Amino acid sequence: MSQKIVLTADRPTGCLHLGHFIGSLKSRVELQHIYKQYVMVADVQALTDYFTNPTRVVDNVLEVVADYISVGIDPNITTIFIQSQIPALPELMTYYMNLVSIARLERNPTVKAEIALRKFEESVPTGFVCYPISQVADMTAFKAEVIPVGDDQLPMIEQANEVVRKFNKLYNTNCLKEMKPYLSNTGRLAGIDGKAKASKSLNNAIFLSDEPEVVKQKVYSMFTDPDHLKVSDPGKVEGNVVFMYLDAFYEDKEEIASLKEQYKKGGLGDMTLKSLLNDTLQKMLIPIREKRKALTKKYLLDICMNGSLSARKIADQTLYEVKNAIGINYFNK
Amino acid sequence: MSQKIVLTADRPTGCLHLGHFIGSLKSRVELQHIYKQYVMVADVQALTDYFTNPTRVVDNVLEVVADYISVGIDPNITTIFIQSQIPALPELMTYYMNLVSIARLERNPTVKAEIALRKFEESVPTGFVCYPISQVADMTAFKAEVIPVGDDQLPMIEQANEVVRKFNKLYNTNCLKEMKPYLSNTGRLAGIDGKAKASKSLNNAIFLSDEPEVVKQKVYSMFTDPDHLKVSDPGKVEGNVVFMYLDAFYEDKEEIASLKEQYKKGGLGDMTLKSLLNDTLQKMLIPIREKRKALTKKYLLDICMNGSLSARKIADQTLYEVKNAIGINYFNK
Repeated sequence: MSQKIVLTADRPTGCLHLGHFIGSLKSRVELQHIYKQYVMVADVQALTDYFTNPTRVVDNVLEVVADYISVGIDPNITTIFIQSQIPALPELMTYYMNLVSIARLERNPTVKAEIALRKFEESVPTGFVCYPISQVADMTAFKAEVIPVGDDQLPMIEQANEVVRKFNKLYNTNCLKEMKPYLSNTGRLAGIDGKAKASKSLNNAIFLSDEPEVVKQKVYSMFTDPDHLKVSDPGKVEGNVVFMYLDAFYEDKEEIASLKEQYKKGGLGDMTLKSLLNDTLQKMLIPIREKRKALTKKYLLDICMNGSLSARKIADQTLYEVKNAIGINYFNK
Repeated sequence: MSQKIVLTADRPTGCLHLGHFIGSLKSRVELQHIYKQYVMVADVQALTDYFTNPTRVVDNVLEVVADYISVGIDPNITTIFIQSQIPALPELMTYYMNLVSIARLERNPTVKAEIALRKFEESVPTGFVCYPISQVADMTAFKAEVIPVGDDQLPMIEQANEVVRKFNKLYNTNCLKEMKPYLSNTGRLAGIDGKAKASKSLNNAIFLSDEPEVVKQKVYSMFTDPDHLKVSDPGKVEGNVVFMYLDAFYEDKEEIASLKEQYKKGGLGDMTLKSLLNDTLQKMLIPIREKRKALTKKYLLDICMNGSLSARKIADQTLYEVKNAIGINYFNK
């Protein structure tokens, strides 16, 4: 099999929004034709964060899968699976945990930043600190070599490759593959309030599953330039969320450039721009929403089950090779 | 099933010695008639320590099982299994890792002492720090309620019960059982050199599988009282390894008491005592050694495989209950 493998994942803690769409989902729709693609619903990883509120995770698993299908990820060519249904993953993690020191984990900049964001303080759960090792298990289980990430995730790939090299050297094998990050060239999409992070809890994201009137209401409440009071006033483009979204979703880039010029000079109203953005998003979201509404729970469960069964086979094979390298396949060498 | 479950384990890092016999194996031979007994060869746990030298672990798995059978642990009533062959264990561990903070792990006195013993310094492997959580998985997987331990292991049971209570409360279940320590009344058997720890690397232990001449040579090189030069000199009983071993293995306690009096007064030679101890041990070890020699590799592998298959069923059932409580059995509720 010469086709390279690409793996991506989402923590199912809410429906997916336009930020996910532009930052990752759209590219997965293309990548599935270039590589063998695995897409994982990372419920176990989400639980390292939401273990006190598991329904938040459980209730969103099928929502996320519905989002995948509705944007065009094709379950006939992409293997969509649920992390908790692949027993080889925690087994692999166990063996990798010996190869990473606690000190190294605590130095990981991504994890450090995430710990600071949450309010764990002195009692950071072990599961949370260890999730980079769990990610190494996810990536190596499927021998993924291409990992689409934002640049905030680069330390994760670096740490994963450290484990891969250490394992292969120590156990004299080449069963684990090193990974290469596949950096997306789109930055993160801000929330409609202009905050860097768009999320369900801040209610500042436009979800792929939002109804038309909700999308419209969110677009019209977008943060623009607070000093741009009259249409004739000159307006600021930087930090203006409407322009950020137009940059991301409006296809005619020349027209956007000219609208920006006009806005800066004065004479272009926020309402005109918001109406343009609303039309753009509505048009884009119609087929996604229609496809989503046609999906039944049974269909989604079947996709997850079939995908998980097929992912399990691949991960079991890797686990077999890993245990063979260590020497602990006592019954079936 | 009203019969309580007892679980014990050994790290397969060497053959078992007289310290294991008197401290644990003898009592397991009795416990198997009182409780449903599981005995685990803890190869995964041993690897948290010996991951750079896995053959040390791998080569000792069957040796340890041979020791079990040779002392009278009966595979027809005791389930003997290998940790690495039970995939539910690392899965359970994953969910428990969310319930224990890194700070709590690092406060565990048993682990602290073990880290100090080893020379990890700044780079303590994550697997090593987390092995108490792995033990919670082992114990809860089989719903063990009786855990034979030395008192140095009490903090482990305490920490395990914390996890059990936290899990049952958080996920509104009673699928995990609290454990009670079953303290053995025999202290730790010293090495033949008088050091507290008897081990293969110090070459100061008498192994169950030692040949008669090796046993004899070890008994005759035992540390006694360095000031007891002539037979007529008064001797010290405290710290005298020969008396420690006689206390542990010689059945006639009255005779031992009178020998101690005589030794303290003077007139009883070390050689006389060593000869008595040698006879005692040789007699005890003959049937063990004979039984051990009759065991084939195939027979031992069969025992491990059958035991592991049957342990797997029990652990899978617990994992099912645990995942049900969290809510992540999507396909088979």
